[in-house]
Amino acid sequence: MQTVGYYNGTLAPLDELMIPATDRALYFGDGCYDATTFKNNVAFALEDHLDRFYNSCRLLEIEFPLTRSELKDKLYQVIDANESDTGMLYWQTSRGSGLRNHLFPEDSQPNLLIFTAPFGLIPFDAEFKLISREDTRFLHCNIKTLNLLPNVIASQRAKEAGCQEVVFHRGERVTECGHSNILILKDGVLCTPPRDNLILPGITLKHLLELAKENNIPTSEAPFTMDELRAADEVIVSSSACLGIRAVELDGQPVGGKDLATLQVLQQAYAKKYEADVQSR
Amino acid sequence: MQTVGYYNGTLAPLDELMIPATDRALYFGDGCYDATTFKNNVAFALEDHLDRFYNSCRLLEIEFPLTRSELKDKLYQVIDANESDTGMLYWQTSRGSGLRNHLFPEDSQPNLLIFTAPFGLIPFDAEFKLISREDTRFLHCNIKTLNLLPNVIASQRAKEAGCQEVVFHRGERVTECGHSNILILKDGVLCTPPRDNLILPGITLKHLLELAKENNIPTSEAPFTMDELRAADEVIVSSSACLGIRAVELDGQPVGGKDLATLQVLQQAYAKKYEADVQSR
Repeated sequence: MQTVGYYNGTLAPLDELMIPATDRALYFGDGCYDATTFKNNVAFALEDHLDRFYNSCRLLEIEFPLTRSELKDKLYQVIDANESDTGMLYWQTSRGSGLRNHLFPEDSQPNLLIFTAPFGLIPFDAEFKLISREDTRFLHCNIKTLNLLPNVIASQRAKEAGCQEVVFHRGERVTECGHSNILILKDGVLCTPPRDNLILPGITLKHLLELAKENNIPTSEAPFTMDELRAADEVIVSSSACLGIRAVELDGQPVGGKDLATLQVLQQAYAKKYEADVQSR
Repeated sequence: MQTVGYYNGTLAPLDELMIPATDRALYFGDGCYDATTFKNNVAFALEDHLDRFYNSCRLLEIEFPLTRSELKDKLYQVIDANESDTGMLYWQTSRGSGLRNHLFPEDSQPNLLIFTAPFGLIPFDAEFKLISREDTRFLHCNIKTLNLLPNVIASQRAKEAGCQEVVFHRGERVTECGHSNILILKDGVLCTPPRDNLILPGITLKHLLELAKENNIPTSEAPFTMDELRAADEVIVSSSACLGIRAVELDGQPVGGKDLATLQVLQQAYAKKYEADVQSR
């Protein structure tokens, strides 16, 4: 199977997998997820993703029943059932199933959906074009929830504009992208917006900050504006799919391009980290 | 069947109905819904709900393929398969199915899920207790979407406080409830917050405003504050399940109770309207 699906114990090709129509994810988006790439049948940075997943559950008050070790076993069961040794691993839980009722269900356990899909990392020398858009999302963007409608619409707008991502801003303040974090390099400093409730605490973002420190690149975690983004030396998009890719255009105007050397230090360090991590489980 | 489910042409008891794991509702909440009660096997105010449903689709750019008449036929197919002639009718559409990708799918049609469930209207003489809570939802509350996590959590908080609903406010400004609209009576005027992007344009709310006009009760559609809510003559909760129910307590303090006569004019007019509407399809 190239795209393997798993739901509460059942394994099937994803496009044949069926789930109950009463799963609360379906009508409330009442759940959270996490995702990472795998290579050599090893999930990249799995411990970091598990940390975030259990934290999302905690913030949504979902009492996810599997221990970390049990969940890892399930995730690797799906990776092992996947024909290719490279791909994307996705998993989500919802609060349970039952007749639609906003209240937490009292007689239902959280559901677990896992799937793999073909995927290749975006090459480090890719160049993104961006559009900007007012951030109209809810104030819980620190939780990796299944409530992603604004992200869907914004991502579609980016594609229609011939772009790869959209930069969200609340007023002048930059938050993040449609499905990525955003950072800038300015005067040799790697800058991220604060990891508050307005952005997802990205695993790739965390790694970039760690790698910056290891490579003596100063970091800053503080709000910055759209004007500061436009004036940045480099604009960097990060996610599990793109491990620090430069943006070269924003709303049709050139951005960045003034400190590629520093970005390349980070990219080379990340490539090394990635390869080391996926050597063994 | 007491709870009938329908999905893309398949009819089954709701708790046996299965849907594909690739439905975008499941992982993005990428869709919208509507719901109304039925009695005598007649859906109440169906034309109003269909207006809103098609408008939600339009706002989400979901090209729902069924004509209004075709959709009505499906909805009544499900009502007719339901054993009881009274209940709740719910339907939702999602943008389509496929491998998880934020971009709108190009090779998939919107999905249609319908179900009925046992339900009785909340009696007009019920008295609600409320809690208040900062409104942290997204800025698209005028669309009846499947992104309802903040509503789920807030409704649970209300229940835990021994209350029936939660009043959301953005700063001091009252918006709506966890799954209802909120109105007040003040000096004989029926007041609703403006039907902008911060609240759902409730069908019951619309009816209450119409019935007020028919009964010479002045109406106002303008922002009001939590203090004004606390000082209101009556506080009224409205939804398809509760057609104008008074709240008597907010955060443990008494509210309303000063103009029951006007509220009862509205309730009696609504009861009459409801019964007239569900006489025939």
